[in-house]
Amino acid sequence: MEKGSNETTRQLPDETCPYPLLSKIDSPEDLRKLSPQQLQQVCADIRKMLINQLSGNPGHFASSMGAVELTVGLHYVFDTPRDRIVWDVGHQAYGHKLLTGRRDAFVTNRKLGGLSGFPNPQESEYDTFTAGHASNSISAALGMAVASELNDDRPRRNVVAVIGDASISGGLAFEGINNAANTPNNLLIILNDNDMSIDRNVGALNHYLTHVTTSKGYNTLRYSVYKLLRKLKLISERRKSSILRLNNSLKSFITHEQNIFEGLNIRYFGPFDGNDIERVVKVLNDVKEMEGPRILHFRTKKGKGYEPAELDPASWHAPGKFDPVTGKRIEKKTDGPAPIKFQDVFGHTLVELARKNPKIVGITAAMPSGTSMSLLQKEFPSRTFDVGISEGHAVTFSGGLAKDGMQPFCAIYSSFLQRGYDHIIHDVAIAGLPVTFCIDRAGLVGEDGMTHHGVFDLCYLRSIPNMIVAAPRDEETLRNLMFTAQNANHGPMAIRYPRGNGFNAEWQTPMRALEIGKGEKLSDGSDVVIISAGTMANEVNRAIKILQLAGISVAHYDAVFIKPLDNEMMEEIAQKGLPIVTVEDGAIAGGLGSAVMEWLSDHGYQLQVKRIGVPDRFIAHGTVAQLRKICGMDSDSIANEIIKIKTGNE
Amino acid sequence: MEKGSNETTRQLPDETCPYPLLSKIDSPEDLRKLSPQQLQQVCADIRKMLINQLSGNPGHFASSMGAVELTVGLHYVFDTPRDRIVWDVGHQAYGHKLLTGRRDAFVTNRKLGGLSGFPNPQESEYDTFTAGHASNSISAALGMAVASELNDDRPRRNVVAVIGDASISGGLAFEGINNAANTPNNLLIILNDNDMSIDRNVGALNHYLTHVTTSKGYNTLRYSVYKLLRKLKLISERRKSSILRLNNSLKSFITHEQNIFEGLNIRYFGPFDGNDIERVVKVLNDVKEMEGPRILHFRTKKGKGYEPAELDPASWHAPGKFDPVTGKRIEKKTDGPAPIKFQDVFGHTLVELARKNPKIVGITAAMPSGTSMSLLQKEFPSRTFDVGISEGHAVTFSGGLAKDGMQPFCAIYSSFLQRGYDHIIHDVAIAGLPVTFCIDRAGLVGEDGMTHHGVFDLCYLRSIPNMIVAAPRDEETLRNLMFTAQNANHGPMAIRYPRGNGFNAEWQTPMRALEIGKGEKLSDGSDVVIISAGTMANEVNRAIKILQLAGISVAHYDAVFIKPLDNEMMEEIAQKGLPIVTVEDGAIAGGLGSAVMEWLSDHGYQLQVKRIGVPDRFIAHGTVAQLRKICGMDSDSIANEIIKIKTGNE
Repeated sequence: MEKGSNETTRQLPDETCPYPLLSKIDSPEDLRKLSPQQLQQVCADIRKMLINQLSGNPGHFASSMGAVELTVGLHYVFDTPRDRIVWDVGHQAYGHKLLTGRRDAFVTNRKLGGLSGFPNPQESEYDTFTAGHASNSISAALGMAVASELNDDRPRRNVVAVIGDASISGGLAFEGINNAANTPNNLLIILNDNDMSIDRNVGALNHYLTHVTTSKGYNTLRYSVYKLLRKLKLISERRKSSILRLNNSLKSFITHEQNIFEGLNIRYFGPFDGNDIERVVKVLNDVKEMEGPRILHFRTKKGKGYEPAELDPASWHAPGKFDPVTGKRIEKKTDGPAPIKFQDVFGHTLVELARKNPKIVGITAAMPSGTSMSLLQKEFPSRTFDVGISEGHAVTFSGGLAKDGMQPFCAIYSSFLQRGYDHIIHDVAIAGLPVTFCIDRAGLVGEDGMTHHGVFDLCYLRSIPNMIVAAPRDEETLRNLMFTAQNANHGPMAIRYPRGNGFNAEWQTPMRALEIGKGEKLSDGSDVVIISAGTMANEVNRAIKILQLAGISVAHYDAVFIKPLDNEMMEEIAQKGLPIVTVEDGAIAGGLGSAVMEWLSDHGYQLQVKRIGVPDRFIAHGTVAQLRKICGMDSDSIANEIIKIKTGNE
Repeated sequence: MEKGSNETTRQLPDETCPYPLLSKIDSPEDLRKLSPQQLQQVCADIRKMLINQLSGNPGHFASSMGAVELTVGLHYVFDTPRDRIVWDVGHQAYGHKLLTGRRDAFVTNRKLGGLSGFPNPQESEYDTFTAGHASNSISAALGMAVASELNDDRPRRNVVAVIGDASISGGLAFEGINNAANTPNNLLIILNDNDMSIDRNVGALNHYLTHVTTSKGYNTLRYSVYKLLRKLKLISERRKSSILRLNNSLKSFITHEQNIFEGLNIRYFGPFDGNDIERVVKVLNDVKEMEGPRILHFRTKKGKGYEPAELDPASWHAPGKFDPVTGKRIEKKTDGPAPIKFQDVFGHTLVELARKNPKIVGITAAMPSGTSMSLLQKEFPSRTFDVGISEGHAVTFSGGLAKDGMQPFCAIYSSFLQRGYDHIIHDVAIAGLPVTFCIDRAGLVGEDGMTHHGVFDLCYLRSIPNMIVAAPRDEETLRNLMFTAQNANHGPMAIRYPRGNGFNAEWQTPMRALEIGKGEKLSDGSDVVIISAGTMANEVNRAIKILQLAGISVAHYDAVFIKPLDNEMMEEIAQKGLPIVTVEDGAIAGGLGSAVMEWLSDHGYQLQVKRIGVPDRFIAHGTVAQLRKICGMDSDSIANEIIKIKTGNE
């Protein structure tokens, strides 16, 4: 198989231009001018470019590699951007970016000011909908398909949702299918089934999809019969019910299987080989002419066309930098023991606690490796539950476990936990059930950008009665908070921590219980008080050093608990009568700063408060350091802000 | 058929005690001592009591009437409370309350300090889980079933989820089923299918359920074969796969149908007559012995046993007071034209706007009559979308409609919209799509209590960038806000208004566009400034009259827009330098009061601010007036608070 070429050293004639066809495609219009026979070369070009680019500028690799033929086929057959392609989760959409005028800009992928790593309507008219959280494509595309009916578009506008086998197991996708089946619309749902979500896929639906593949003979037969009948005009698109009956009867006669989708009144075709471009184009052309909602099931291979990724697609989901020729992944070198990721501190600590406490169980929603819940899964498989992409269920299920005596640790990324908001209120907090939410990827997450920043949690959790909301500033505090969570009958508790590495190589500290709602004074000072939440303590520490040089003396408190706020600490702070600066890695509308002001007003204090945090707008992608600077949350900005306060007050 | 008896006038011997058997049942233990033959009388007693009680003390009627046999059967067959019954939405659970030690307390149903209208774990150990929002029972019950496996309970604990045909169409229920199928557990899911959610049910799944019923012959046959094979020990519970195969093959041979649940790898039995107590007990006993997750499908009749309700179950969902003998519903009398409900002002106004603006479409999640979206549905059926119980989908679908040029008005109750929180952020706000959220039942809702109060919306919406958040103080402002929403390309906008009646008989005012982010001064004064949100302006007006008598002069501003706050208005207020009191019908942690304090601190003001709103705890049920008093939000409390501030400052 062809591996990524090294353009400068090889001297083969066709290598003078490494992407002979892709380099001439500036829009899908150009693609549609090619002959069907040329599409294979386009696919090869896209793969080569993905390998070359992503080896140096990391991103999501294996999903886009697997979806190359689907991408080329869709833009070849459909009249984009007039026809709508709605990608579900943008992992798979890099090829789409290359074909839609962003080939040359792709070097800026995920970089500050560059292309977004996900489809983004503000970036291109070909990106029809926001695609960072899973399972939304069917609902969004159904909206567009219905709008097209209402607008009475002529020629008819085609709307295509492209959803993976992991995403389709989300409740939102089910709600979308359930509604699509009985609304007049022309929606085409493409199931891009690579049998491999980010982690091992789970759930009955997935089991079903694997099973359905085995009956290929039947499905192919049915498809052929269907086409034949249409050709002979024995069956009409207008008579949908007869088609459904045909499908169902054929299926029942030939196999003895159930078909979920047809049970839901949606026509289903497949599975087909989604890495065979000729087949893909042919099937898409056939299905394009049909009317009414329908599901087309393609099987694709994650990492297709790059052997190392085909062999280990999970690791190659987002592999980081790698050598395009050898497939060797390039790890950052460190001297001696280095800090590990917060998620690993969580994972190892959970295993440590679970060894002693048999009531501890772990729940994750399709992210065992992303949250490092995989560590518990490995040691206690029967006490670990990967429920798939279904955050709402993960929360309510945790509530049920807690109700009958378990001590659930439910680990979900901050921005994805938004899907479980009502479930936290209704299924956990109202009854005060002791579920511990371990909220990973809290705060600005960097390159994944707008849809992935975990900036709303402090605000939406803080307004829920009975919730304890904590943020550790370092590994030791994270461990102590987890120890505290499993020991106390405290009701629901949230512990939020950021993406990326901690600070200490020696993170495996002995654990102790913390007092709920107790903050910590980290340093004393006489000019200004800073109250920080979580790892922002480190930005503050650096700011304090800068301020010391400027002769400004800062008292620094770590809230540790955003809710309940430490009364004693707050009283001590308020009585100083100094200006207060709050620093948090979250949206400032309603977060820690507001909590501090609420406390002050409730206790009769009128003090100057300056809130530093994520401003009230959606923040794009870039490195965390870059984004913090933009948001005025880095140590320099914090120091400057305090100098301004000091100067302004003099 | 038997109607509600009038105990005092009839002199039949068995009427000396109107509930001969029920009156002796103080717990399910007592029920289980009865012979199977006596259960019919227990059912009759329950129905009679429900009719007698609910005719005078209104509540949810028809659902509980339909579920009487299921309720009796479950408590008779299962060892409650050790075995767990998890009700999905509490409408159906009144009979359960009567059997579980709350018969005599039932006169206090939904009253302040009395029984909750929904199952409530704090009220009884028989109420296993919070049950106010739909579709959570399977996930919660699965948690309990898995906990029982992990705890290795002996004898085995049975866990039963009872879910309606409307609730099961929610994405959360699907996520639960999808997960149940591949986790070792002993969950029994009972589908209580009365073919009638609060409103007409929708969606493919519902279509499917209606269809499945028609194949009764097959299902009964399969069930009998299954029992026979078990009896002959030809089939073992341990060999689940063989049972599944048996089910599937039988089905395929006899009918030509799909079975969604079996496609999802869950055994399915039914449908059975759920109003035949003998049958219910028999089937429950059979199924109880099986292992592994399974679905049991009962057909029941909503309103069963009370003719008026059987004939018009939708109106009898929560009928208000009625005459038990005649079935005549008792309407409140009014003299002359009276104010109508806010929901009707919304509904009529939407129709008015839609007549002129063809881009307007309406979306509701199973609540066309509850939101009065039914008015649009009647006049513009093709522009109205009732998507069933799927709030997340409703929001994302609205986003898709807005993307392609429609002007969606998405009407959902405040507490249910919590299910669509992530969807508002990810699928609407990030791309700034012009969806208008019409949030009904905002603030304290009264008798429905804890799970239904719409008190978190100001907080969670306010922290979302690009969101406009407005609250009308009266009908005219609601109409003007809706007019504004449909005219401007404003991005997402939320308009929240309360349950119940407005204030003006003459509500059909001419409409005009409001300036986004513009508040209104309602009265001037020199001692204190009040900023109110929404209809709390009326409590404030009454408070101001009280304060005038006390010689305190109040300036009163209506924020109208909680976000963005009116800069000019805030500047005017801040420069007065007076104490500020904020009054809102929502959680004070993060709401209007916090927004005001944030504005003041951002603009360098340090002023006394007192926040009045719903305190940081879950508020139980009672009348709105009672609850406002308890929360210190009624006019008397507001006036007292201001007197305290005035006195304290002197």
